[in-house]
Amino acid sequence: MSNQRFAAPPADKQQLEVGTVFAPRFDGNGLITAIVTSVDDGELLMVAHMNAEALGLSLDTGIAHFWSRSRKSLWKKGETSGNMLRIAEIRTDCDQDAIWLKVSVEGDGTACHTGQRSCFYRVVNSDGKTLNLG
Amino acid sequence: MSNQRFAAPPADKQQLEVGTVFAPRFDGNGLITAIVTSVDDGELLMVAHMNAEALGLSLDTGIAHFWSRSRKSLWKKGETSGNMLRIAEIRTDCDQDAIWLKVSVEGDGTACHTGQRSCFYRVVNSDGKTLNLG
Repeated sequence: MSNQRFAAPPADKQQLEVGTVFAPRFDGNGLITAIVTSVDDGELLMVAHMNAEALGLSLDTGIAHFWSRSRKSLWKKGETSGNMLRIAEIRTDCDQDAIWLKVSVEGDGTACHTGQRSCFYRVVNSDGKTLNLG
Repeated sequence: MSNQRFAAPPADKQQLEVGTVFAPRFDGNGLITAIVTSVDDGELLMVAHMNAEALGLSLDTGIAHFWSRSRKSLWKKGETSGNMLRIAEIRTDCDQDAIWLKVSVEGDGTACHTGQRSCFYRVVNSDGKTLNLG
């Protein structure tokens, strides 16, 4: 599947920012950043990337699909663990180079492969140390 | 300023994921993704990128700094508008390739240059159209 599923980003900035056409701006690697939060309480759960195929499948199925940069393959998150991400809403940002998914986490409710609910379980302190909240 | 401000990411995955050393994984362009939410209500406000200098300045000053990919320059968000982002907390994710900033927006409280509070003011529908909530 190519990017032809989606409209090409308009050259006109105003059109891109306030128009009604979804025209995701994939980067040089064909990817767009996807932010995932809980639809229940807004917690930031994870950040991943989508190519056009993953974004199309996410829109069509209501289940989040990503592109795994490490494995270089389509990634249906939770397919093995059961912790799939059911999409309640998708948003895009002003310049359409990021996607926000509000989701319900299925299975045991953990979005991170470490077993934490969120991948963001560590606070960064100014001394260069992290504090694990898990 | 180089990346020498920060520890090099450990080769050991366990160390990277549960260790206490902050070792941000900048990408091939020297950038890391930064997610910005409101510390007040958790709303996703914007997504941007930081290089090592921007991340260091954010940690040192408590005011969010980014790298503008379009202008190819350090970007102290809100320096002109007054809508600077005061950082309440910084987190990193499991594989340390993303940063989460919880912020208070100064000035008139809008984080997006379009005048919206959040850059994510449009819902994406499966028909390829967006709905502006602003």
